[in-house]
Amino acid sequence: MRMAVIGCGRIGRMHAANIRLHPETDLAMVFDEHAPSAEATAAENGCAIAASADDVFASPDIDAVLVASITATHADYIERAVAAGKPVLCEKPIDLDLDRVNSCAKRIAGSSVPVQIGFNRRFDPGHRAARDAVANGEIGMLHQVIITSRDPGMPPRSYYESAGGLLRDMTIHDFDLARFMLGDEPTEVMAVAGRLIDSALMDELDDHDTAMIILRTADGKQCHINNSRTSTYGYDQRVELLGSKGMVTSLNRKPHEARRYTGSAVEAATPYLDFFIERYEEAFMAEIGAFARAIRDGAPPEVGFEDGRRALVLAEAAYRSIAERRSVMVSEFD
Amino acid sequence: MRMAVIGCGRIGRMHAANIRLHPETDLAMVFDEHAPSAEATAAENGCAIAASADDVFASPDIDAVLVASITATHADYIERAVAAGKPVLCEKPIDLDLDRVNSCAKRIAGSSVPVQIGFNRRFDPGHRAARDAVANGEIGMLHQVIITSRDPGMPPRSYYESAGGLLRDMTIHDFDLARFMLGDEPTEVMAVAGRLIDSALMDELDDHDTAMIILRTADGKQCHINNSRTSTYGYDQRVELLGSKGMVTSLNRKPHEARRYTGSAVEAATPYLDFFIERYEEAFMAEIGAFARAIRDGAPPEVGFEDGRRALVLAEAAYRSIAERRSVMVSEFD
Amino acid sequence: MRMAVIGCGRIGRMHAANIRLHPETDLAMVFDEHAPSAEATAAENGCAIAASADDVFASPDIDAVLVASITATHADYIERAVAAGKPVLCEKPIDLDLDRVNSCAKRIAGSSVPVQIGFNRRFDPGHRAARDAVANGEIGMLHQVIITSRDPGMPPRSYYESAGGLLRDMTIHDFDLARFMLGDEPTEVMAVAGRLIDSALMDELDDHDTAMIILRTADGKQCHINNSRTSTYGYDQRVELLGSKGMVTSLNRKPHEARRYTGSAVEAATPYLDFFIERYEEAFMAEIGAFARAIRDGAPPEVGFEDGRRALVLAEAAYRSIAERRSVMVSEFD
Amino acid sequence: MRMAVIGCGRIGRMHAANIRLHPETDLAMVFDEHAPSAEATAAENGCAIAASADDVFASPDIDAVLVASITATHADYIERAVAAGKPVLCEKPIDLDLDRVNSCAKRIAGSSVPVQIGFNRRFDPGHRAARDAVANGEIGMLHQVIITSRDPGMPPRSYYESAGGLLRDMTIHDFDLARFMLGDEPTEVMAVAGRLIDSALMDELDDHDTAMIILRTADGKQCHINNSRTSTYGYDQRVELLGSKGMVTSLNRKPHEARRYTGSAVEAATPYLDFFIERYEEAFMAEIGAFARAIRDGAPPEVGFEDGRRALVLAEAAYRSIAERRSVMVSEFD
Repeated sequence: MRMAVIGCGRIGRMHAANIRLHPETDLAMVFDEHAPSAEATAAENGCAIAASADDVFASPDIDAVLVASITATHADYIERAVAAGKPVLCEKPIDLDLDRVNSCAKRIAGSSVPVQIGFNRRFDPGHRAARDAVANGEIGMLHQVIITSRDPGMPPRSYYESAGGLLRDMTIHDFDLARFMLGDEPTEVMAVAGRLIDSALMDELDDHDTAMIILRTADGKQCHINNSRTSTYGYDQRVELLGSKGMVTSLNRKPHEARRYTGSAVEAATPYLDFFIERYEEAFMAEIGAFARAIRDGAPPEVGFEDGRRALVLAEAAYRSIAERRSVMVSEFD
Repeated sequence: MRMAVIGCGRIGRMHAANIRLHPETDLAMVFDEHAPSAEATAAENGCAIAASADDVFASPDIDAVLVASITATHADYIERAVAAGKPVLCEKPIDLDLDRVNSCAKRIAGSSVPVQIGFNRRFDPGHRAARDAVANGEIGMLHQVIITSRDPGMPPRSYYESAGGLLRDMTIHDFDLARFMLGDEPTEVMAVAGRLIDSALMDELDDHDTAMIILRTADGKQCHINNSRTSTYGYDQRVELLGSKGMVTSLNRKPHEARRYTGSAVEAATPYLDFFIERYEEAFMAEIGAFARAIRDGAPPEVGFEDGRRALVLAEAAYRSIAERRSVMVSEFD
Repeated sequence: MRMAVIGCGRIGRMHAANIRLHPETDLAMVFDEHAPSAEATAAENGCAIAASADDVFASPDIDAVLVASITATHADYIERAVAAGKPVLCEKPIDLDLDRVNSCAKRIAGSSVPVQIGFNRRFDPGHRAARDAVANGEIGMLHQVIITSRDPGMPPRSYYESAGGLLRDMTIHDFDLARFMLGDEPTEVMAVAGRLIDSALMDELDDHDTAMIILRTADGKQCHINNSRTSTYGYDQRVELLGSKGMVTSLNRKPHEARRYTGSAVEAATPYLDFFIERYEEAFMAEIGAFARAIRDGAPPEVGFEDGRRALVLAEAAYRSIAERRSVMVSEFD
Repeated sequence: MRMAVIGCGRIGRMHAANIRLHPETDLAMVFDEHAPSAEATAAENGCAIAASADDVFASPDIDAVLVASITATHADYIERAVAAGKPVLCEKPIDLDLDRVNSCAKRIAGSSVPVQIGFNRRFDPGHRAARDAVANGEIGMLHQVIITSRDPGMPPRSYYESAGGLLRDMTIHDFDLARFMLGDEPTEVMAVAGRLIDSALMDELDDHDTAMIILRTADGKQCHINNSRTSTYGYDQRVELLGSKGMVTSLNRKPHEARRYTGSAVEAATPYLDFFIERYEEAFMAEIGAFARAIRDGAPPEVGFEDGRRALVLAEAAYRSIAERRSVMVSEFD
């Protein structure tokens, strides 16, 4: 499968290399509005550079497109990919504006062109093993889900300006993971968010750096998400699933398994893998494979457009809960 | 210090033996309305049996009293102990009715007789080490607290009938632990509670078996509590504290450190200590010692009457949040 | 069962308290050549003081004797206890001189008076769970045993002077544990020993502070023991059992389960329990119970005189291996 | 750096892919006496096929050669590579016959062509972190090394026939790791080896499936190695280093960090990575990088020919110890 990558920033470059290395895909072409980024990525991977996004969508040599450009362009590229009949794997979120996501949904409705959203965490081997244990009945009926998701540090100020707020930018992954783990739709959301790490900056940008959320499904399953932008001990990505017959967890990964023992501490390990590119390396690669196989087999992608939309609905519901200090029903957004 | 135990049920018998074994206390006398219970406890420990609670409070041989009788009698015994000038260590909760707790508070106000409430978890070595790490500045400014508290199984029906509801009976410990760990007062409460384990029984008794709660302090610190009555893998008692410079956790204890490794699983340990008497054995003993030392030193007990009252206020606030599906300010209960 | 303790040094005092606290035994009497030690122990436990060891053995109020005096007196006390018809639980080693052990064996041969040797580690819950896993067939045929046994620090010089050498003093426990875990007799011994921690002192005393040993049974099972007098991270006591179907380990215990996570280390725990009285607290208590039950049931003690003798034979074989730099057959000591 | 791979069996194919993927190397050519193996490897990696080994050594397009052919050809290829002035990274062991290794050493003596031996474990991030902790003085003076090295299962009969015996085939890696960890030469060897897994096959082939070894350096540092061909719980590869100030370990890696908790076991993880290609994936890749950098920088490889020779000397010493049931000095092989 010959793929093109649109958007050659940090994550686009990672995807480009993954597509080149993956046994089921080839990297044929890259494009970025900023030509030097496209050139660097093409040089690293030995592939062509498209003169425009139009050229990508028009090229008969391209079987599928991965979109890793800035968020504001995602919905547009999805529409153009679908119009061109090119399967598309688009980074999250679809858009920061739910109305735009809904209009995009309307425009692509009825098309059979595969659209996959880049919720890579679903493909993490540990998270997936946890979900599979539930699916296999190993822990009985699922009762509670706990998702811990903490970035190793505050991003630069410029990042915040276009990120759309903590819950649309960071928690969006956790909302999707919650749906994946619950195997069911949350119907109710309660949330609190704070400015504990850099309150001056967060006040100025009207953003948050720390949050806690509770979700509930129609049949009463409970899910807790906690977020922070400051886990000094490495990227903290954990999932815990409690059921009537037991519990399963997916814990953090370390760069290696060396441990130290002294008079002040024992079993001390090296801090966890620092951030998403290292921590979810296998997940990003598996995501590419799942996309390729879905196209090949004519099956719907494992994480589709509607999954992207629903994660954003949960973020909107959480923001309303924060603003109105009450439990918000997801149905308010229908 | 010569102590008497009032109430010789399961937990009273445990306390009686602890008082006998503790190097700083002696068990002089026990009392129970149900004479055979008092007799069995006296026989086990080689101590006297009081003919009535009045005899306990009147006895010049008794320096302090531990109350482990049924909840409905706690406030009354506290008042009588204070009136008799006997320091009292009373099991939680003070009462299931906040009005009764408030009237008791009024009645004992101004007295210097020490009253300690049996929030034993504060004395657990692991929990205390976690709290001390925060106090020592090891993790910087505290941002988030996660308390996991799950009973190994559903208690018998009779237990529920007098327990006063999940949040007053079980979560009450976690509310206190939250205050201990936060080092600050929660001002806001959001809660959900469900009937996932035995919905028929919970419906009938109008009780819950599963809950999730978020607390927030005035300065924005966040705390999550999750509860369940069905952790099949042993009593699950964990605390996690996230700060600006790191994290500290207090995890579960196992009966021993044997681990198994086979073709189906590795590092598999024996399930966690089953329930509170085993899990908090050291904490119950340390609680007795702290009580004895507070009396000896003329210092206020580490966990006083007001701590017991505030934990109940948090339970009431959580119930209101559940009923009204909104964030509830603790100040509504002033 | 009314017991007397002979020898009120550190370990005798611990045993005296355990006998008092154990539900199946009472502490009736203590004796020590050094009167103040006996007095302190008697005061702590509220028991009588014997005027002489003869008085202990002659007393009709004493059902059994625990010997925790200096090693040089052990064999003699065992002989006197047996002659007096008093079951005896004697601390290890029986004697530092194999000839003396053999003469003692001869003298007590044919008697039905129970003699138990204080190899407490067999009663540790973790070690026992490991052994039970083998006995239950959980790991198939046993192939290899690894015993790690390291003291937290060098004892004072005076200790070495009467200890009889590293292998008779410290490794003696591991030789017994090896036999317990193997469920079989080692027939062959290879050993090296060194002076790595304090070579000047070890040279002067002709002792060792560090050792490695390999044992082999007739059917080829292999066992490795490693010893050191300097595990700065706490008393290190581990057992690992490899079989045809899996592995089971018994690992170290920590004082509590708090863990720290920072930018320099994660999952860092508090150092292991410092030394044998803390680490083997449950084992020492269980040892008393097993002794009491053996007497009550008329069953032979779980760890008898011959176990004590065989552990010493292994120490002698290891010393010969060190001296002659060769594999030594245990049968050379028959 | 343009590399050729000679030998396209399982491990040669892995190396070929690694060379292609490594940012510092390119795969230019492969060769195998068995043409279909070379063809498959060339197809997988998009590289040329050499008609003969001579063509490889003669090609001006080849900067360095990796030898992964059968053991009997290693020494010969090393000599030819050195004669051709091509740096060579040769899989272990150099040869099963120490005389052949010595004659090879003589033939290449004085050459400055880099020769690296494939002791990949030195490049494992966990093992390296452990060694670095020693080098940094974190655990003080090194006293004891424990190496656990167990294959997940018995190889096929055909494998044994050319493997040269357990100690030359499998333990050879551990002998090298011992030297790496000790930072010093072992001078003395004691070993036992057994036939516990398949005694009939091992008897017939005069081989062993289970072994324990003790090494000692001139200054008294002790090292234990244990080997087995049957760790049903995954490839077991651990290193433990005890020093005067602490301990450092390098433990096993799991495929992911999911853990299960039920009424029968808690913290149960998925079995360890199955075998060397998975477990040492990063090490094999790092080995290629170290080789490339050594050539580029004109520095001697981190693991040279003499390291390969010394590991074999230790294997020979261990076999002599087994045969003569005595401690064998390494100097007997000078």
